[in-house]
Amino acid sequence: MAGEFALIDRHFGLRSGAAVGPGVPLGIGDDCAALRLSPGCLLLTSVDTFTEGIHFFAGTDAVSVGHKALAVNLSDLAACGARPVGCLLALSLPPSIDEAWIAGFAQGFLALAKTHACPLIGGDTTRSGIGGAVSVSVTVMGEVPDEAAILRRSGASVGDDIWVSGKLGAAALAVAVRREQALAPMQNGAMASAGFSALPVALRRSASVALDWPQPRLALGLALRGVASAAIDVSDGFLADLGHVLEASGNLGAMLEVDRLPLADVLSHLPDPQQRCDFACAGGDDYELCFTAPPFRRNTVEVLGQQLGLELLRVGTVRAQPGVFLEGNNPCGLKLPEKRGYEHF
Amino acid sequence: MAGEFALIDRHFGLRSGAAVGPGVPLGIGDDCAALRLSPGCLLLTSVDTFTEGIHFFAGTDAVSVGHKALAVNLSDLAACGARPVGCLLALSLPPSIDEAWIAGFAQGFLALAKTHACPLIGGDTTRSGIGGAVSVSVTVMGEVPDEAAILRRSGASVGDDIWVSGKLGAAALAVAVRREQALAPMQNGAMASAGFSALPVALRRSASVALDWPQPRLALGLALRGVASAAIDVSDGFLADLGHVLEASGNLGAMLEVDRLPLADVLSHLPDPQQRCDFACAGGDDYELCFTAPPFRRNTVEVLGQQLGLELLRVGTVRAQPGVFLEGNNPCGLKLPEKRGYEHF
Repeated sequence: MAGEFALIDRHFGLRSGAAVGPGVPLGIGDDCAALRLSPGCLLLTSVDTFTEGIHFFAGTDAVSVGHKALAVNLSDLAACGARPVGCLLALSLPPSIDEAWIAGFAQGFLALAKTHACPLIGGDTTRSGIGGAVSVSVTVMGEVPDEAAILRRSGASVGDDIWVSGKLGAAALAVAVRREQALAPMQNGAMASAGFSALPVALRRSASVALDWPQPRLALGLALRGVASAAIDVSDGFLADLGHVLEASGNLGAMLEVDRLPLADVLSHLPDPQQRCDFACAGGDDYELCFTAPPFRRNTVEVLGQQLGLELLRVGTVRAQPGVFLEGNNPCGLKLPEKRGYEHF
Repeated sequence: MAGEFALIDRHFGLRSGAAVGPGVPLGIGDDCAALRLSPGCLLLTSVDTFTEGIHFFAGTDAVSVGHKALAVNLSDLAACGARPVGCLLALSLPPSIDEAWIAGFAQGFLALAKTHACPLIGGDTTRSGIGGAVSVSVTVMGEVPDEAAILRRSGASVGDDIWVSGKLGAAALAVAVRREQALAPMQNGAMASAGFSALPVALRRSASVALDWPQPRLALGLALRGVASAAIDVSDGFLADLGHVLEASGNLGAMLEVDRLPLADVLSHLPDPQQRCDFACAGGDDYELCFTAPPFRRNTVEVLGQQLGLELLRVGTVRAQPGVFLEGNNPCGLKLPEKRGYEHF
């Protein structure tokens, strides 16, 4: 298996031992890597594990696995308003992994790292345990100029607007399609005609792109410093993540305007409005930012969205009364999904 | 499984959302944790994965798994001369894990974190993949005052002394004992009488302690700033790790004095001198520091060992000629092991 390690070294440029950037005086190849933060800055850091069969489907394209393993971590930096400075990669691989897979993974990972100026500065590669799956733990490091610049979950106040970037629910639809496809062979090919797999190919492809290629909202996170009162990335599902903000801010509640929820375009092809609402509100894996800001910031946020070329929608208001409720034009009598997000287990 | 997460939160003090120390304005519970380094300091960081069945035997006491998962990472900071400032824990658990295991793991991990003032500031807990094993990825973060303070692998020069802390080979003997015990049932109980399992219980226990409870040499690493020319921790095996230093320093070589090698006391009970040499030189898992220093530093290093209560032995000299050779009083005609360390695969 020494050959496999050599491949990994080659594809990731490991064991170079050289500095990998002006802020990285000691890169991969020593016992530690060294990073120099900008003067006075605080370090922000987070780790997330991304495991085959749990967080991504077996057989997912290696390039997108590499992209998403880093993207979901960069999304945590975005949610805190941090600028990326470097990352570490701990890769556990089963024996079945071949060079093409490693090359693809490295390509996806390193391309996103380059896009966001987040150099890979260290890592560890091990064999996964008996019967093991591909498992990727990424640690990201970023910086903020001072403590006041950190976007926290706990800063929302009664009366603040609730905002969401981008659109919600497409990734969750892709998960539903793949689950159905995975089950299909067991049902002797008798797939329900109303199933998600019957959606047009172009729609399913669009949903797949949302699931496999999330874009961490780093530019938005940076721009929201001093503007947003609280922020979180939408990973568990919009309602679950909004709930984390409301809880951390002192058990507050929210009123959402149902006709303002930013449903992904692909969801419009689902016949059941409740199902569309469920995917958008409780689906998860969106990696958009949900944030709060006082009403006097509305114009600032709207301009910001235009500058970034990113839709920012005001979807509701923080209230003192705990719980999340719907108001506004709701002709179908939509209800909030009872399931507020997904748990892996 | 939500109950399992609640247990983990409880045992690790997760979701507190509070600052966990003066240098940690934002602890566990937000999208990122925040760390404030000392003014002007560089960040040093490393990640290592510690997997059941690969890096530790199934059935190892959970308290020692928690200890060692952090210890092997702190050892990387020690090898670079860094002071720990915080750590992140990514834990992948199979369904078989119970509360007692989690409590034990947390106890071992947090006790060592406290000893070395390295607070747990964030983490991620996931289910391990299909048929998965316990897998622990720890990211450690430390600081050094400036670039010159970093102990690197690449700083050794011809004529430097080669030093090793502590003693070598006990952990490797424990691995040999456990492998033999794991195989024994398959051999119908007919264990070879010359096997390691026939060693006295007290010796086997002593070797087990070396394997399961490595002590990261952080105080030594700090003291070696400005004294050592190069350093590495002995994880792969003394010769392999010395080889990394020699290679990184420009493909240098070394002459070792055979009667100075710091063999663990337990090895003296092995009848074969070559076997003792093999365990000490190619065993691995020692987590001592191997370092080089110019000869004029001999007195400094010796005093340092006395101050730290840690044996520091001068075992050889760096030479220009590549390769590692033995000299000195070698009545048994010992040879260096051909296997220079172990690979996990």
